[in-house]
Amino acid sequence: MQYFKSDYMEGAHPLILERLSQTNMEKTSGYGTDEYCASARRKIAEACGCPQAEVHFMVGGTQTNATVITAVVRPYEGVIAAVTGHINQHEAGAVEAGGHKVLALPHHEGKLDAAEVDRYVTAFYQDPSWDHMVAPGMVYISHPTEYGTLYTLEELKALSAVCRKHKIPLFLDGARLGYGLAARDTDVTLKDIAALCDIFYIGGTKVGALFGEAVVMPQPGMIRQFDTIIKQRGVLLAKGRLLGLQFDTLFTDGLYVKIARHAIDMAERIVEGLKAYGYTFFIRPQSNQLFVTLENSLFEKLEQRVGFEVWEKRADGTTVVRIATSWATREEDVAELLEELKKK
Amino acid sequence: MQYFKSDYMEGAHPLILERLSQTNMEKTSGYGTDEYCASARRKIAEACGCPQAEVHFMVGGTQTNATVITAVVRPYEGVIAAVTGHINQHEAGAVEAGGHKVLALPHHEGKLDAAEVDRYVTAFYQDPSWDHMVAPGMVYISHPTEYGTLYTLEELKALSAVCRKHKIPLFLDGARLGYGLAARDTDVTLKDIAALCDIFYIGGTKVGALFGEAVVMPQPGMIRQFDTIIKQRGVLLAKGRLLGLQFDTLFTDGLYVKIARHAIDMAERIVEGLKAYGYTFFIRPQSNQLFVTLENSLFEKLEQRVGFEVWEKRADGTTVVRIATSWATREEDVAELLEELKKK
Amino acid sequence: MQYFKSDYMEGAHPLILERLSQTNMEKTSGYGTDEYCASARRKIAEACGCPQAEVHFMVGGTQTNATVITAVVRPYEGVIAAVTGHINQHEAGAVEAGGHKVLALPHHEGKLDAAEVDRYVTAFYQDPSWDHMVAPGMVYISHPTEYGTLYTLEELKALSAVCRKHKIPLFLDGARLGYGLAARDTDVTLKDIAALCDIFYIGGTKVGALFGEAVVMPQPGMIRQFDTIIKQRGVLLAKGRLLGLQFDTLFTDGLYVKIARHAIDMAERIVEGLKAYGYTFFIRPQSNQLFVTLENSLFEKLEQRVGFEVWEKRADGTTVVRIATSWATREEDVAELLEELKKK
Amino acid sequence: MQYFKSDYMEGAHPLILERLSQTNMEKTSGYGTDEYCASARRKIAEACGCPQAEVHFMVGGTQTNATVITAVVRPYEGVIAAVTGHINQHEAGAVEAGGHKVLALPHHEGKLDAAEVDRYVTAFYQDPSWDHMVAPGMVYISHPTEYGTLYTLEELKALSAVCRKHKIPLFLDGARLGYGLAARDTDVTLKDIAALCDIFYIGGTKVGALFGEAVVMPQPGMIRQFDTIIKQRGVLLAKGRLLGLQFDTLFTDGLYVKIARHAIDMAERIVEGLKAYGYTFFIRPQSNQLFVTLENSLFEKLEQRVGFEVWEKRADGTTVVRIATSWATREEDVAELLEELKKK
Repeated sequence: MQYFKSDYMEGAHPLILERLSQTNMEKTSGYGTDEYCASARRKIAEACGCPQAEVHFMVGGTQTNATVITAVVRPYEGVIAAVTGHINQHEAGAVEAGGHKVLALPHHEGKLDAAEVDRYVTAFYQDPSWDHMVAPGMVYISHPTEYGTLYTLEELKALSAVCRKHKIPLFLDGARLGYGLAARDTDVTLKDIAALCDIFYIGGTKVGALFGEAVVMPQPGMIRQFDTIIKQRGVLLAKGRLLGLQFDTLFTDGLYVKIARHAIDMAERIVEGLKAYGYTFFIRPQSNQLFVTLENSLFEKLEQRVGFEVWEKRADGTTVVRIATSWATREEDVAELLEELKKK
Repeated sequence: MQYFKSDYMEGAHPLILERLSQTNMEKTSGYGTDEYCASARRKIAEACGCPQAEVHFMVGGTQTNATVITAVVRPYEGVIAAVTGHINQHEAGAVEAGGHKVLALPHHEGKLDAAEVDRYVTAFYQDPSWDHMVAPGMVYISHPTEYGTLYTLEELKALSAVCRKHKIPLFLDGARLGYGLAARDTDVTLKDIAALCDIFYIGGTKVGALFGEAVVMPQPGMIRQFDTIIKQRGVLLAKGRLLGLQFDTLFTDGLYVKIARHAIDMAERIVEGLKAYGYTFFIRPQSNQLFVTLENSLFEKLEQRVGFEVWEKRADGTTVVRIATSWATREEDVAELLEELKKK
Repeated sequence: MQYFKSDYMEGAHPLILERLSQTNMEKTSGYGTDEYCASARRKIAEACGCPQAEVHFMVGGTQTNATVITAVVRPYEGVIAAVTGHINQHEAGAVEAGGHKVLALPHHEGKLDAAEVDRYVTAFYQDPSWDHMVAPGMVYISHPTEYGTLYTLEELKALSAVCRKHKIPLFLDGARLGYGLAARDTDVTLKDIAALCDIFYIGGTKVGALFGEAVVMPQPGMIRQFDTIIKQRGVLLAKGRLLGLQFDTLFTDGLYVKIARHAIDMAERIVEGLKAYGYTFFIRPQSNQLFVTLENSLFEKLEQRVGFEVWEKRADGTTVVRIATSWATREEDVAELLEELKKK
Repeated sequence: MQYFKSDYMEGAHPLILERLSQTNMEKTSGYGTDEYCASARRKIAEACGCPQAEVHFMVGGTQTNATVITAVVRPYEGVIAAVTGHINQHEAGAVEAGGHKVLALPHHEGKLDAAEVDRYVTAFYQDPSWDHMVAPGMVYISHPTEYGTLYTLEELKALSAVCRKHKIPLFLDGARLGYGLAARDTDVTLKDIAALCDIFYIGGTKVGALFGEAVVMPQPGMIRQFDTIIKQRGVLLAKGRLLGLQFDTLFTDGLYVKIARHAIDMAERIVEGLKAYGYTFFIRPQSNQLFVTLENSLFEKLEQRVGFEVWEKRADGTTVVRIATSWATREEDVAELLEELKKK
């Protein structure tokens, strides 16, 4: 049985483990004040085209989302997100536990539409009761989205323009950013993201690291005492160098995008195979997450043999499943998977 | 110009003011430990048909909603409400500020549908990721709703049954409860509410009091240290007797429903008039809030002369306005209002 | 039996009740947007010597403290207070429920010492771990304090200077401010407070009103969207005019200080009597709260006949009781109290 | 220069790194649902003498403290801790950010005194205003404490008895538990802790792991939906097996205590050396943290050469420094350190 349930089922890229082993007995200061973190920060800032950018490391995506939102948004504000956004669905209410409402807007294959955001914010301030309502204080997007889809550069520019027009910071959840950057048909680069977003993060957990997310603020000083806020939320890693070492490795010689491209290659091979076998995609495949629609009868036969994630049971008698590749997916696993799916 | 914008534009019923004057120089202990509060609690419990019920007083609706929800719901739980529910729209994110997500379901003229709630909760626990999601920990309804509509006894029983089946407390926001109880076509009594809900409140602010909401828990002891929680949220009134005196007055000789009925009478008179003049109701009138659809051109003419609340600007070129009567609405005001609306 | 347990045992000054009765059937807009609130704001701002001051009304002291602190202090900051401060002792953890630590410093008859605050803040930033600790983000004082004591103008200036030096806002809890302003030996005026504090409030609940606290920000715009924050915390009164009417009355013809002075007169009469009878004061009497030390045996005899508040059972076999006068204390009650205490 | 600033300056015990490498490319399910976590849980429960114990893994100490406290304590309750407790001093207000007050009691070399806790709780409920105050809802202790000191079995039994008498859960922060268990003069075993505490954790970050804390509830089911609460706080590690693998390794063949004993041995060697050189200990050394009092002039000479942590600048012209050994401290580092300190 092949497991393609998610992109965080393996450990880390071997170069990372090697680096951890080499440096294991070194003594460094804690909490991200070490030289490895400093080096990783410099490399990330450079890759973003913002040498002055401020970079902080956290361990996982949910904590990064909740900490950034809490730190940026004022008490009376909420955060706009697609209804399918991770913060709205699968973070157990972390944003609300931090005191803020998620203002859910319709999604378009997981994406927010800039014009809809603009209309929402405009209408908000036209509502005679707006000052008894939750003001939009941030726009949250993910790239790739929870459906594996990607913003085009034009779409991202439009969202950024709407946010700047209304003076609302744009926050990009890049938990799977590598797979977005490595995608075949994207025209969005890391530098674009740094130019268009106010704050974003580069996901390590799903792209080659044991764990780790690198938060980037292109304009340094955007958040006062951010490290204290991170500490207060309990997510300032004591041995912070573990984060520095991992990101330093990932941002050396373009490793981050290189290993992400492998996942894209494997995903494409699966897409081609499935198309050939006549499978239907629920969402047009764009990165490393593939959403396939199956008749329930077929689903029941397959689920014993193929390790995919059940995404949605639909009223029309079909099941949507997710197949995710990763930096670690082996060619022989893909071959075996296709073999299994061929049998249907 | 006649003001029908809301049902909290006047002071209090004269008997209440009289009572406050009579007792003004008495000395009593604070925070609701006085004899007037005790008497009001007894009368309310009796009116609810639950002599053992526990009754607490607060000052306003938003604070009551937020305090009850915080006190009842566990950290990982949220509260189901209609998307139009007051807690989801017009309380500035008070529930989220207390740490909990509002789980918004579709509304049906402002009401939740029991079958939909059942399906939602059932589907929630079937979702493979449910333990990373916000669990439904309470069902919130308002009666009358924000649209002035009323649950039938059958609907309320169905909701209560769903809640009990899933062991989720049912909380009824009765900020306008008097107008619901006094409505012409309702079959829901206060005793029904006490039998079917786990916690609810009887609104005073909008029904004859200067301010005040009486929270009723038919099963005493449902919330440990509720007064301390009320104090912590800053909403335990120092001179608590002001609340006791008001509710004691309202629950003497059926004053509460009696004065609410007057609002219903006045509303009916307006409904008849408007129907005769050919106006269209956006929602079928059921209690003291009337929602009228106006062509924008007509709206613009009227808004200078008639004090209603703009509810919604619709894409079809109409405006929905709200006209609210209250215990204090005078017959001559109604006559004058109808006169104005006749002129269109 | 005479009750001197607290200064919030009666209703309101008769002029206030009269005013509420006169205006009872008027219709006004809600939430403090009415003309009575506007008038009260103007009068208060003028009395503060700051015509431009921003004034907001809330219902009670705990909610005012918690709301102001939440609105002003950043997520990683706490609030400095005397260990005896109301927010540290008797508000059921409202400040912490809002997410902030109370940084308790030693008290001096209920007061903070400016030099100690200065040393605390200076030492804080010298601590090598300061960025893992709760930063001082506000200084909270009460005037009169919980012990009825008063800051001298010199002390208040010193505190203000320390706060400004460290760029920390100074917040004065004036729940009993009237009694402080009316005290015999004070050199602190309302204008001094407005000049030296960044935000403060003028207490109505304990000084003649049914309820109500007026928050004053000498520099308008200090808090963005403060009314929305007040709404979110559930403490924006629907019939806001009740607050406007009360403060408008209290700030017409100097009523506020005039009625407070009566409490001071009554307190002085009690002080003189008790001194003549040989009683000992635990704290030098300065305003309307008197703290008397009694041998336990004497206390047990008296407590059946005299309605004071038990403040503290001390290890040395004495009990400290509090006697509070108010604007409503009658001369005959004082006479009777002294008669009772004479008998010991 | 030798660094003895803290016990989290190195990576992980080599066996852990080896295990991570061996299993790196395995695919496992996430969030702690894998077999390595299951195995680690079994071994920990067995080591605690509670086969039925519930075990959860988190990444760091602050997040564990804040998450456990939030999950256990009711909204109106706070947590008793020594004034020197980590949650009261060095977690940036994480407990308060979660809504709860830390009720700080005096410390005795970092420890709480059972009789004082008993008196505090008893006095609390005797205070006439107790229901307007923060109720003690948990007792937090650390073992070893922030001063490296240890509870005796008798002391721990006394605290446990007080907690059970008052029905208050006892929570033990074992961030450095290994060093406590391995100490020379302790009579407290892991089984004692499991028998006497309601919830506690076994620290990995400071005792051989890259990161990780194992929370143990001897009575399973103590907290409903604890994993969801952990997820909500953003501290449920995606690749949970990293925690399972580390604790499985540490709890195989007694590795955890074995490596901790090395730190104790190294600490003892330093203690003996320092005593011989005439240094004075601020606190009697008991585990792996040593607190040495230095004249400021001596301190200034040494700080260039010796990497200790500045603990406290005292008014008497001395500086207290901390020297911490760890599982990773090398004998030659100790020798070099002693050499440096000899020179004074």
